[in-house]
This record gives sequence, C-alpha cells and structure tokens, in this order.
Amino acid sequence: MKKITTNLDKFQYFYPYTVNIVGAQFEEQINYMACAWHTALSFDPPLFGVLISKKRLTHQVISQAGEFTVNFIGFDQVKLSAQMGRISGHDTDKIKEFQVELAPAKKIRSPILARAYVCLENKLLDIRPFGDHDLFVGEVLAVHEDEGCFNQDGALDVAKIHPLLYLGSDLYITIAPESLQHVLPKLGSDI
Amino acid sequence: MKKITTNLDKFQYFYPYTVNIVGAQFEEQINYMACAWHTALSFDPPLFGVLISKKRLTHQVISQAGEFTVNFIGFDQVKLSAQMGRISGHDTDKIKEFQVELAPAKKIRSPILARAYVCLENKLLDIRPFGDHDLFVGEVLAVHEDEGCFNQDGALDVAKIHPLLYLGSDLYITIAPESLQHVLPKLGSDI
Repeated sequence: MKKITTNLDKFQYFYPYTVNIVGAQFEEQINYMACAWHTALSFDPPLFGVLISKKRLTHQVISQAGEFTVNFIGFDQVKLSAQMGRISGHDTDKIKEFQVELAPAKKIRSPILARAYVCLENKLLDIRPFGDHDLFVGEVLAVHEDEGCFNQDGALDVAKIHPLLYLGSDLYITIAPESLQHVLPKLGSDI
Repeated sequence: MKKITTNLDKFQYFYPYTVNIVGAQFEEQINYMACAWHTALSFDPPLFGVLISKKRLTHQVISQAGEFTVNFIGFDQVKLSAQMGRISGHDTDKIKEFQVELAPAKKIRSPILARAYVCLENKLLDIRPFGDHDLFVGEVLAVHEDEGCFNQDGALDVAKIHPLLYLGSDLYITIAPESLQHVLPKLGSDI
C-alpha cells in the first residue's frame, strides 16, 4: 500500500546519486563543491550536466572560466564530500582548508582532483535555469581514470572502486560489490 | 597514476545511476522504458528531469501525453529493468509482455508502476535537446511511496529498500546497507 504525498518540502525521493566534486579555476580563484545532482546528457557528442544553485561560488567561478572539471570520488573520501558540500567557498578557501590535492588537466586550464578515481574535463557549452538551480552543460573533452578502475568495456570495476553515494540528509552509502549482476533481456514473463 | 582518454566511444564513467521506469499513457497507448540518465533539477518548485532518445517510443508517448511518471524500482526487479531498457515499445507491448502491474495516479492520467517503491507524477513542462538525447523536464505534482520506506527526514530507509543501480554494459548492482554513514562537515584538515 502506498502513501501519497503532495507536500514536497522534503524532496529526496530520487537518491542515492553518486557524489562528484565539481568546479573550476578563473584567474587566481579556484573553487570546487560536492554535487549530487548530475546526469549524462548525450553519448555523441559526449555531454555531461551538473546542477548548481546561483548562491554557490562555484556557479560564479565556472561561469567566468567557461570550463569545469567533474571529479568522482570513492567512499573513503566521505568527509571531503561533506566539507565541500556543506561549506561555501564564499566563507572558506576549501582547497586550502581541506588540503585538496589538485593536478593539471590536459585540455583546459582548470585542475582536476588528484585523488578522484575518474575526472571529466569539460568545456562549458551552456547554462540553463531550472527553478532554483542552473544546469551547467559540459562537452567532455578528456577523461582521467585511475589505471585499472574501469574494465575493458569501460564499466567501473567494483572490486577496486567503491563509489561514494549520497542519500540526502547528510547520509552517505556505497555499493555492495558482491551484488553485481550481468542481465540481458529475455522475452517472456519470467520476472 | 591516471590514464588520459580523449576517445569517448565508451562513455560510461559516470555510473552507477539508479534505474527508474519512465513513461506515460496517451489515449490507448501506454509505454514505459528503463532510464538511468536522470536528475533532480530544482527543490522549489520540485522539478525532475529524464533523458530520452528521440528513437524511443516513450519519447513520442510522453510528448503527446504532456505528462509522465517516474518509478524507482528495487534490485529484485533487475530483469524488468533489462527488459524495459533493451527492448523497444516499437516492437513489443512491454506492459503486456512483461506483465507490468499498473496503478492509477492521483493528479494525472498516466499510471504509476504498482511494484515501484516510489513514483513521481510529473506534468511535462519542457523538452530540451542535448546532443543525441532530449531532456524531459517534469514538475512533480505528487509522490507515491511505499509505507515505511522513507524515514522521518524523507531519506530512503536502506534496511528496507535496496535500490537498483545501473553500471553500464548491462551490469547492475545495489547498495551495501551496512556502509551507511551520517557525516556532518567539520572545519579542519582531518580528511
């Protein structure tokens, strides 16, 4: 039996989402934030989108830089996510305060996070407003991946990487590697 | 040490994403598909977006209906996801073939999936093209949730629900409930 809700003050039904750390460098200013609202947008061309509130310093820095990096982190970096998510760059130099190790990108000037297992370098194509957030649309120019963390098919090797997932309400979780299943569709009502 | 990739034929670096079954009814036609590219877009108003290729019958049916439901399913329904994802409604009446149990929505005419743990009823606000997919923007009008599967804070109760996650390449996985952590940010470099 289902309960029906039309008061959506607590709008967290869609979690878990993986956490990434997204941001950019513009001149001397570097700012990154934790982001759980994101999605692939297109295979060809490869486009990736992140949602960022106008209130965030990251919004301003990416807008000025015209580029951004998206850095997916493992469950072992859960504290970094809480810090980069809940604390604003308007108040704190998060890169310095939390000793975030940066590394150079290949195609753009903004850095990637050295301890992320995969980093996407993006050229900013567009910023589209949706309610209280803006969608930053990136064309993925290059990907940095930790050696051996994706298999030959380009799928995450869950024996090696336990991605960080966000559940809302400051709750985090990761995957159960032993639950992995390869499932091809079959016609027939065997579900 | 990271490997750098600029050939993005296999663009699967962003998984896992939760799987939902998205679709609509227009007149006598009902069609739903499995979707792993989606994101919340705004808290206020509550907006949710799904990416759908123009090739899919679901694209046509939602466009005609002007509304859609998003139905998140558990790991026990992994076969349903493979079937609803890999098989096109152009070839098969998937609702009939796979005996998908439907239930009435509250605010719109398109049905929800009775066996989903949470279902979002959406009014279609806009369709925005991004490369080879279109973003369907929904205003969430009502939510159907299985009793007791979200806690008082509106966060998923992972002891009760094991959401289905997609990894790309027909691979599926779920969460490890025992890994759950509540983490608040602290200033200081203790990460």
